[in-house]
Amino acid sequence: MQKLRIVKIGGAVLENMPDFTEFLDVFAKIGGNKILVHGGGRLADSLLNRLGIQAKMVDGRRITDKDTLDVVIMAYGGLINKNTVAGLQSRGCNAFGLSGADGRIILAHKRPVQDLDYGYVGDIEKVNSQMIHLFLEMGIVPVFSPLSFCPEGFLLNTNADILAAELAIALSSDYNISLIYCFEKAGVLLNAPDENSVLESLDEREYMQFKSRGIIAGGMIPKLDSSFRALNKGVQEIRITNIKGLTNLDGTLLSYCSSGAVKK
Amino acid sequence: MQKLRIVKIGGAVLENMPDFTEFLDVFAKIGGNKILVHGGGRLADSLLNRLGIQAKMVDGRRITDKDTLDVVIMAYGGLINKNTVAGLQSRGCNAFGLSGADGRIILAHKRPVQDLDYGYVGDIEKVNSQMIHLFLEMGIVPVFSPLSFCPEGFLLNTNADILAAELAIALSSDYNISLIYCFEKAGVLLNAPDENSVLESLDEREYMQFKSRGIIAGGMIPKLDSSFRALNKGVQEIRITNIKGLTNLDGTLLSYCSSGAVKK
Repeated sequence: MQKLRIVKIGGAVLENMPDFTEFLDVFAKIGGNKILVHGGGRLADSLLNRLGIQAKMVDGRRITDKDTLDVVIMAYGGLINKNTVAGLQSRGCNAFGLSGADGRIILAHKRPVQDLDYGYVGDIEKVNSQMIHLFLEMGIVPVFSPLSFCPEGFLLNTNADILAAELAIALSSDYNISLIYCFEKAGVLLNAPDENSVLESLDEREYMQFKSRGIIAGGMIPKLDSSFRALNKGVQEIRITNIKGLTNLDGTLLSYCSSGAVKK
Repeated sequence: MQKLRIVKIGGAVLENMPDFTEFLDVFAKIGGNKILVHGGGRLADSLLNRLGIQAKMVDGRRITDKDTLDVVIMAYGGLINKNTVAGLQSRGCNAFGLSGADGRIILAHKRPVQDLDYGYVGDIEKVNSQMIHLFLEMGIVPVFSPLSFCPEGFLLNTNADILAAELAIALSSDYNISLIYCFEKAGVLLNAPDENSVLESLDEREYMQFKSRGIIAGGMIPKLDSSFRALNKGVQEIRITNIKGLTNLDGTLLSYCSSGAVKK
């Protein structure tokens, strides 16, 4: 099977111009099939603030009302996506910006209201992997904004970490996938303020223990939950790292290890 | 040659929800190859206003400084483009949103500073018609936002009327083109306030006369200038009309008529 790298780039790297420039330089040079998924929550927050719209967060998750959805579409689907595509194109990388609505590439449903109404938030149902495959065959580098599409006719705000994992799962039957979460830290840290506490590897059993003891918490939870789900569903390799880790392959390598199974 | 319809939809139709819905219904039903180009200046103005950024206009043309460019990318490339794509996809039309940077599909250079510095405004140099052709072959309906790409790595604000005409010219060697400017008026009016003063047809000689006498003025000038340029460059058919004219083919049909030539 051909190799495919899926890189998810996080908010803090996008916000900081020297880091973003360095990221574009490094990503543009990666050879072979590749896909980029970006977040952008911090820009959305700043835009909401400038427009006088209160950002609504519950347990680190955004509540997306109609006004917030419009802002998120402008920030993710507009400014960040198009500037990333332009930056990559100027570096000779044939980037192509996508939301879930373009070519119905990421279908989702609005998250059902239970204890909490998340508003216009999408839970992904289906990835149009055939179209992504066609694009990759054409030498196109898809650049995904974290927006999925509800077939009733609107976009939905979607967690970019989960979107990257769902892309990896959907494409793992056609490609040998390497999914790389690239953010401002060197990897999964055992002691958050200490950059030297990076775990070289982490399997699911260890993760469950660290999680239950509160050693791994916050924004790492959706990233790691969806990562282990992706490993269990056949994604071959997942790494959590910073920009340097994209080339020197440092950072934390996640490994699948179901109860009683031998660690790979 | 296969037929290709290029429809440009203007600001007022985009702003008014019943009109926009009607437009999406009509456009989605058009059979065969088609491309949509949208404007969006009014949304950009309203967003600039909400963000406290002064809109700068000289002779009806926007001066695009860096802050304005960001807003224009959010409004055109983000909100309008993605909502249009989502609306068309929900109507069974396989729409796909594009800026000039995606796949380097519309290359431009920053307009040189002469008497006036227009800022980040693009004059189109080259349309990647091969990629558009590939998309049309795949059954994709390209939806263009009025943003072109400067290969140095940034987007440029571009007049949507001119973008539509340049697309028509670039594709006229591969397709039998029908370019339709769809806006809030029934066609080119001889007497602006009177909707019954629609010209059924207009050739270039007549246009030059109406223009020199001030009978045709304002926003119609770039639309008609680029239309006659497109007819002179081989575009087969150009019509200026409203939503109804998309199906009943009412409105003003432009015709090429060089000095001394027989009117077609």
